[in-house]
Amino acid sequence: MKQKPWGDRPKRPARESRHNDHSSVTFGIAPVLEALRAATRKVDKVLIADGSRGPRLDEIIDLCRERSVPFTRVGRDVLGRSVSPGANTQGVIAYIAAATYVSTDDILEDPGTEPLLLVLDGVEDPRNLGAIIRVAECAAIDGVVIPERRAVGLTDTVAKSSAGALEHVKVAKAANLNRFIEELKLRNIWVVGTSVDAATDYDAWDWTRPSALVLGGEGAGLHRLVAENCDVLVKIPMYGRIDSLNVSVAAGVILFEARRQRAKAD
Amino acid sequence: MKQKPWGDRPKRPARESRHNDHSSVTFGIAPVLEALRAATRKVDKVLIADGSRGPRLDEIIDLCRERSVPFTRVGRDVLGRSVSPGANTQGVIAYIAAATYVSTDDILEDPGTEPLLLVLDGVEDPRNLGAIIRVAECAAIDGVVIPERRAVGLTDTVAKSSAGALEHVKVAKAANLNRFIEELKLRNIWVVGTSVDAATDYDAWDWTRPSALVLGGEGAGLHRLVAENCDVLVKIPMYGRIDSLNVSVAAGVILFEARRQRAKAD
Repeated sequence: MKQKPWGDRPKRPARESRHNDHSSVTFGIAPVLEALRAATRKVDKVLIADGSRGPRLDEIIDLCRERSVPFTRVGRDVLGRSVSPGANTQGVIAYIAAATYVSTDDILEDPGTEPLLLVLDGVEDPRNLGAIIRVAECAAIDGVVIPERRAVGLTDTVAKSSAGALEHVKVAKAANLNRFIEELKLRNIWVVGTSVDAATDYDAWDWTRPSALVLGGEGAGLHRLVAENCDVLVKIPMYGRIDSLNVSVAAGVILFEARRQRAKAD
Repeated sequence: MKQKPWGDRPKRPARESRHNDHSSVTFGIAPVLEALRAATRKVDKVLIADGSRGPRLDEIIDLCRERSVPFTRVGRDVLGRSVSPGANTQGVIAYIAAATYVSTDDILEDPGTEPLLLVLDGVEDPRNLGAIIRVAECAAIDGVVIPERRAVGLTDTVAKSSAGALEHVKVAKAANLNRFIEELKLRNIWVVGTSVDAATDYDAWDWTRPSALVLGGEGAGLHRLVAENCDVLVKIPMYGRIDSLNVSVAAGVILFEARRQRAKAD
């Protein structure tokens, strides 16, 4: 069988949807600095015009590094297209998320008494991410971790698709998922990945243990290294002729099996 | 708790999406008669212009009645807007579904050796219906039954959202869901409805018995009479602060629990 998991292909490239689907764009040196300094960690990405220099731009770049906010140099015309005609960007704009991120440390240091976490390795469709966050809330997941790059962030569409759940679920961005997985293992949290090739069925795993479920993105599944770093890989057996569930449905099937086992064990 | 179930509200009224989201529109007396006479049962709805009369239109109306195809009288301007400018509708158009329906008799008479059926009481969002059909395929459901009215049919969006599953799943339209439920009971198939108020958890039901799961639509849940006609009502316990899963995720959680129990019993 192929290494193809929960096979929805996002409707458009993630890069595109990240740019067009944010609650707001902030521009100008002072507002961007302000957004980066705010304690609420809401900046998804910063774009800086090619050739823009200066001590306050350096400060923006330093803050981006410090807070793990991705930043990119782009042509001035790209900046211009992202704001209203005539607006003076001063060479910098920031994309602001629709909800507040927590830090991965917040999740690692307070993972709940019987941790049940969800790690998403590259979900690109904002509607899928919203639906997954809704599932995570209904299953009372202690935290959701998404990668900083090559995945959709907490956009407006994510917020809408979550049906209000985004307000209640802790979501963190990890600069490096594999490093985060190592941290989970150090804290004795079992890391359970998913693969259509897995030998173990999802319901054969003992979910009463502290566990983090790792789900792959829509097209490609778990990255090879992520899959290798998992303690165990599980699969949902497919009974029909097509071989993959939507990733939010897969999240629901596995997380509610985890809750079912825990309810029975109580 | 409220009688509010898997609470997505469709983005636009169902009537609207039924009209704009079909694979094709057929118009003219002969083509519509032909579509209605074809054995493949693909006509979702017929519109007839106010004031149009004649023996062949009567024949169309008789065929609609015979085949349980809803038909409505509408203004000529409505018909005109549904086809290319200048096309002569001869006072009648038919909306053709993106896939072939089976009859409810096909499902009742050949429900599989250990029937596991799915009945949808008014799902209105075509993306939800497509996602549910995808779940149904992956869980190898023996048939899906949808109501003839006040629900979305097998539109293009449904086909796309099903990720190919629509080709493999038997879908039938029931003129009257309550009568279909009575037929299921006569055939010793247990009818299991869902309600957030149910006393029984979904995993406490013995799904190794011949069963039909009845799921409500996005806003309102099961109709009162449908709920009363079920043999039992079950719920998915909610562990978080919001009280409802998306209906396709709910379908996944319950149908894979059914499959899990059957796999264990084998």
